[in-house]
Amino acid sequence: MSIITLTTDFGIKDHFVGAVKGTIYSELPNARIVDITHQISPFNITETAYILRNAYKKFPDGSIHIIGVDAELNDENKHIAIKLDNHYFICADNGVISLLASEISPEKIVEINIHEYIESSFPVLDVFVKVACHIARGGKLEIIGKIIPEFKKISELQPAISSDHNTISGSVIYVDNYGNSISNISEKLFNQVGKGRAYEVIANRYSFTKIHEKYSDIVDFSLPKEQRQKDGTKLALFNSAKYLEIAMYRSNLSTVGGAVSLLGLSYRASITVNFN
Amino acid sequence: MSIITLTTDFGIKDHFVGAVKGTIYSELPNARIVDITHQISPFNITETAYILRNAYKKFPDGSIHIIGVDAELNDENKHIAIKLDNHYFICADNGVISLLASEISPEKIVEINIHEYIESSFPVLDVFVKVACHIARGGKLEIIGKIIPEFKKISELQPAISSDHNTISGSVIYVDNYGNSISNISEKLFNQVGKGRAYEVIANRYSFTKIHEKYSDIVDFSLPKEQRQKDGTKLALFNSAKYLEIAMYRSNLSTVGGAVSLLGLSYRASITVNFN
Amino acid sequence: MSIITLTTDFGIKDHFVGAVKGTIYSELPNARIVDITHQISPFNITETAYILRNAYKKFPDGSIHIIGVDAELNDENKHIAIKLDNHYFICADNGVISLLASEISPEKIVEINIHEYIESSFPVLDVFVKVACHIARGGKLEIIGKIIPEFKKISELQPAISSDHNTISGSVIYVDNYGNSISNISEKLFNQVGKGRAYEVIANRYSFTKIHEKYSDIVDFSLPKEQRQKDGTKLALFNSAKYLEIAMYRSNLSTVGGAVSLLGLSYRASITVNFN
Repeated sequence: MSIITLTTDFGIKDHFVGAVKGTIYSELPNARIVDITHQISPFNITETAYILRNAYKKFPDGSIHIIGVDAELNDENKHIAIKLDNHYFICADNGVISLLASEISPEKIVEINIHEYIESSFPVLDVFVKVACHIARGGKLEIIGKIIPEFKKISELQPAISSDHNTISGSVIYVDNYGNSISNISEKLFNQVGKGRAYEVIANRYSFTKIHEKYSDIVDFSLPKEQRQKDGTKLALFNSAKYLEIAMYRSNLSTVGGAVSLLGLSYRASITVNFN
Repeated sequence: MSIITLTTDFGIKDHFVGAVKGTIYSELPNARIVDITHQISPFNITETAYILRNAYKKFPDGSIHIIGVDAELNDENKHIAIKLDNHYFICADNGVISLLASEISPEKIVEINIHEYIESSFPVLDVFVKVACHIARGGKLEIIGKIIPEFKKISELQPAISSDHNTISGSVIYVDNYGNSISNISEKLFNQVGKGRAYEVIANRYSFTKIHEKYSDIVDFSLPKEQRQKDGTKLALFNSAKYLEIAMYRSNLSTVGGAVSLLGLSYRASITVNFN
Repeated sequence: MSIITLTTDFGIKDHFVGAVKGTIYSELPNARIVDITHQISPFNITETAYILRNAYKKFPDGSIHIIGVDAELNDENKHIAIKLDNHYFICADNGVISLLASEISPEKIVEINIHEYIESSFPVLDVFVKVACHIARGGKLEIIGKIIPEFKKISELQPAISSDHNTISGSVIYVDNYGNSISNISEKLFNQVGKGRAYEVIANRYSFTKIHEKYSDIVDFSLPKEQRQKDGTKLALFNSAKYLEIAMYRSNLSTVGGAVSLLGLSYRASITVNFN
């Protein structure tokens, strides 16, 4: 039985998540349901894409991902189901897929057309769950929708490369649980443009000439403890999702603060890389 | 194997939820446990009832719902187990069941009497889990309690209907994840009283003469984008749970705010419907 | 199939938890994964130990507990796997185990040595999950690590007993979801030192001469309702984890406040017991 994952902006207090899971279990008693997150900022498809992009690949091929963000059906927000990278995604055609998997061509896209039988003000429950269970039972996408050539493309918040290829101008696309500010500059892009040159990362009024591979790289363990870098030291690193991140070493967002608050690097703040 | 759901005010940081799940798995290795929510405001049975009422019906018949809110056993807070609407509920007899299912007659009610064998300061874990596992194994309610004729009735926060049947006076009973303010006025009651008449909904100093069926009903998609209703427009609608709700279109409670903060419609605020 | 539990400081918004679960399911399609909590304050091993200590014993023998707190590998933070009390723990050797189970001797401790094959900036996902799945499949600890004689011991925040055995000087080690302040003074230690003598508990400028067994012990149900103790009355009790706790009866931390805010009993505040 395939795994069905849930990525929504429902929060975890309301009845929405429980109702969706109950509906899935009513259709598929042996379903395996996994929460990716329900804490997406309301309607924020950039966050949705960042989180799901870093999570979905860890699931087995054939997993089915329900995206319950900005999913109300209307004339400009069709419902789609997609097979891409051996995973299935069920969502509104609001651009989230292009942010999630811009470099991967989908195998198949359908516009879901089972709505004529379903009157719903809660389409994630009434429509997306039905589609997910259909796929989980081995059903074909063509049965629940008509094939369309492409999904909506949006390219918000892509980093820009200067014409002389000496600068990448990116921005913060996500702030994580530790208050670390994550840019849209991937390690891959960094290497393509930088070609091994020296560089300076500029984030607000702070500058970094070294990008680390892990947080504790900044600590010199050969020194006695009292002479070492302290908690709260700022650093740049490529995080485990392979994006350039500005972090504070072992900071606590809810007490002393993190990079987002201490360095002023909130959502959409500029992060620039200058190569020599 | 039946599903066991959890609805509590335990929060998700403390050990309580993990301890309850571990105890269930120790008794029933193949249990299917589903979290409805653990974010109930402490001791708030009105919230509990609203959330569980909208979630439980989506689960298969025979599901077992543990309600871990205000559950400490004392002389005025007995423990009960109920079969109602083909579902089982295990909770304290604090009135939550009457809010949850005021219109449905229970098939069976027992006052749980296994406490003489169990000394506990954590009854959800020590008592409710035992009862849930007993039911999940197909056990009868009479084995773990004695049949009682009724549960405690409370009727807090029911809307009032004026003697001339021209006004429904309700109030906000729940604020959801998006900051939308949900009243205790159901679509069913609205239709019974209104009988198709024109109406005005009064919420604080705001007035609505149209109740929508979905959020994006307020958007005229035939207009160019820049001439349309903006995010943050207020509207009245019957939500997916079929209650009258005052909402802000695509608002974000943690940034710009929602109906609860922008319109001053917090818990217990008045919502009135005047029919012509 | 053994249960795998997760205790982390990842939060529930980021992709980390979903990625870990996806990786487990990719290795073990029939895994049973249970969240203990993901809300540990960043890097806080005292909190981790308090929560997991109270949760793990409720799980069946053989359960595997992944601790994703302060887990980045470096010269002073080795990765270990332990069999202790018939449970398995996978964590960094940062002292958390000594806080978790100071009185129980481990059956076996290994320093994990599969890192030479795994380059990782997300060791919980890349290393701990591999170890957990190895154990879940019945694999031996010696295969994934080399046996070491002991784990790192730390003894932070143990209560002190005066030389005349008349005083226990403890402190707040955890604040729960209700704002109750939990000390490091166990009922067992209290009884060992007190030997049945009368006592006074001093917490900030408040004094308690009675330690209750449950919250509603302070209510005299023989009185009419309006003459009874009110919500918000302060009390001392041994909580369900058997630690001395200062609580406010039926308080709500997010509105009126709890013991932590109203009595000034936050993390590390002193709690003293004087015996006569």
